[in-house]
Amino acid sequence: MSYKVYYEDTDCLGIVYYANYLRFLERGRSEFIAAHGQSVADWNREGYLLVVRSLTIAYRRAAVLGDLLDVVSSFTLESRFRAVFHQRVERAGELIVEADVEVICLDPDQKPIMIPEAIQKLAAG
Amino acid sequence: MSYKVYYEDTDCLGIVYYANYLRFLERGRSEFIAAHGQSVADWNREGYLLVVRSLTIAYRRAAVLGDLLDVVSSFTLESRFRAVFHQRVERAGELIVEADVEVICLDPDQKPIMIPEAIQKLAAG
Amino acid sequence: MSYKVYYEDTDCLGIVYYANYLRFLERGRSEFIAAHGQSVADWNREGYLLVVRSLTIAYRRAAVLGDLLDVVSSFTLESRFRAVFHQRVERAGELIVEADVEVICLDPDQKPIMIPEAIQKLAAG
Amino acid sequence: MSYKVYYEDTDCLGIVYYANYLRFLERGRSEFIAAHGQSVADWNREGYLLVVRSLTIAYRRAAVLGDLLDVVSSFTLESRFRAVFHQRVERAGELIVEADVEVICLDPDQKPIMIPEAIQKLAAG
Repeated sequence: MSYKVYYEDTDCLGIVYYANYLRFLERGRSEFIAAHGQSVADWNREGYLLVVRSLTIAYRRAAVLGDLLDVVSSFTLESRFRAVFHQRVERAGELIVEADVEVICLDPDQKPIMIPEAIQKLAAG
Repeated sequence: MSYKVYYEDTDCLGIVYYANYLRFLERGRSEFIAAHGQSVADWNREGYLLVVRSLTIAYRRAAVLGDLLDVVSSFTLESRFRAVFHQRVERAGELIVEADVEVICLDPDQKPIMIPEAIQKLAAG
Repeated sequence: MSYKVYYEDTDCLGIVYYANYLRFLERGRSEFIAAHGQSVADWNREGYLLVVRSLTIAYRRAAVLGDLLDVVSSFTLESRFRAVFHQRVERAGELIVEADVEVICLDPDQKPIMIPEAIQKLAAG
Repeated sequence: MSYKVYYEDTDCLGIVYYANYLRFLERGRSEFIAAHGQSVADWNREGYLLVVRSLTIAYRRAAVLGDLLDVVSSFTLESRFRAVFHQRVERAGELIVEADVEVICLDPDQKPIMIPEAIQKLAAG
């Protein structure tokens, strides 16, 4: 998946606003999950809410209006309750942003539950 | 209510991004309603969802990082089902943006219902 | 151009937040211009800043997480200084939002200038 | 500084969208700097651009529509070129989010420069 940088993504320093990379990362995770089975919206309807518990992110280069950004994602399973997405935002192969995003699964009452096995199976390695 | 312009509100032209004024307008409507009774969140919990059906907006001047913006709001009742908020975004009395925002009320099943009488009473004139 | 609805686009009523359709509309205008010549970023570099002066928008249906939205755009030339984009956001052909967006062209000193002829030529009719 | 949670901040899970806390954190940093001297916009005009190089953030509780959020900020100086903001988003004293945000200073050509001494002096301890 590639995403173009539009005005909405930039700020008055002329570059992509730092919070907006988290939007690109979330698009990347959503597409990663959908590409390997059903969509995030489908999982929600079945009562599985994947939410971010923590993340670290490093901004390596600045992206600007019109750039085409790729989000490269993989993930590792820390336990049956906790996964970490390893994500890179790239521009023609050049690293722009990298992040580790810890994700857990909640039920509709906001109680932690096991990550669905179909998603567990997508873990790297 | 005054709102400061932060990086998040601006774009790479150095000014507030056009869509973000709708965020300022919605903050203004929310504060207008809360100032005259219960909050929008309270109304939601009681099953009254105020949603925008249409709007017109004119951009008169550009606001920039650090500006302090006021949102001035009043509204007129078109019927018991339909109200129009008249809103101005100002910077120290100078007009930045003006908008007419048509609002209706839905129940939790997305069916149009009467605007609550307590809100109807806030209409100007 | 199709755009998927991600979490970032929705609000706690479960639907796309009203201001965010303006982001979809701007993506549509940017792609419309780029598809017929150079990109908006290129025009900026040449000193032509296309900015929105006013708009009207009507919300016909609500879009939700995972929807795939198309932005259909055309425009008419009101004068050499002023154009109106006619835009529709659709979901599989169903009308979600329609808008008329008045656009003018500024130079880097924020002075109104003629819309570049290459863009004028894109006008419908 | 307190910030109310508006529709714009929430997503269709009914809670504040994870990227939007970075907007709250940036508001907090901007107010922290302005409270101790000149504003971020003033620093920009003098050629000092404070930008985020990396951050870690942990989401402890979910905030919802209408919540009043406080951003508590302090910072430590790692070197004359690098500072770390320690920030907490709280709701009536309850921890919602905590983050460490690494900040550097760029000149208008995007070259790293020393953090202005007036800002260095704000470091805790």
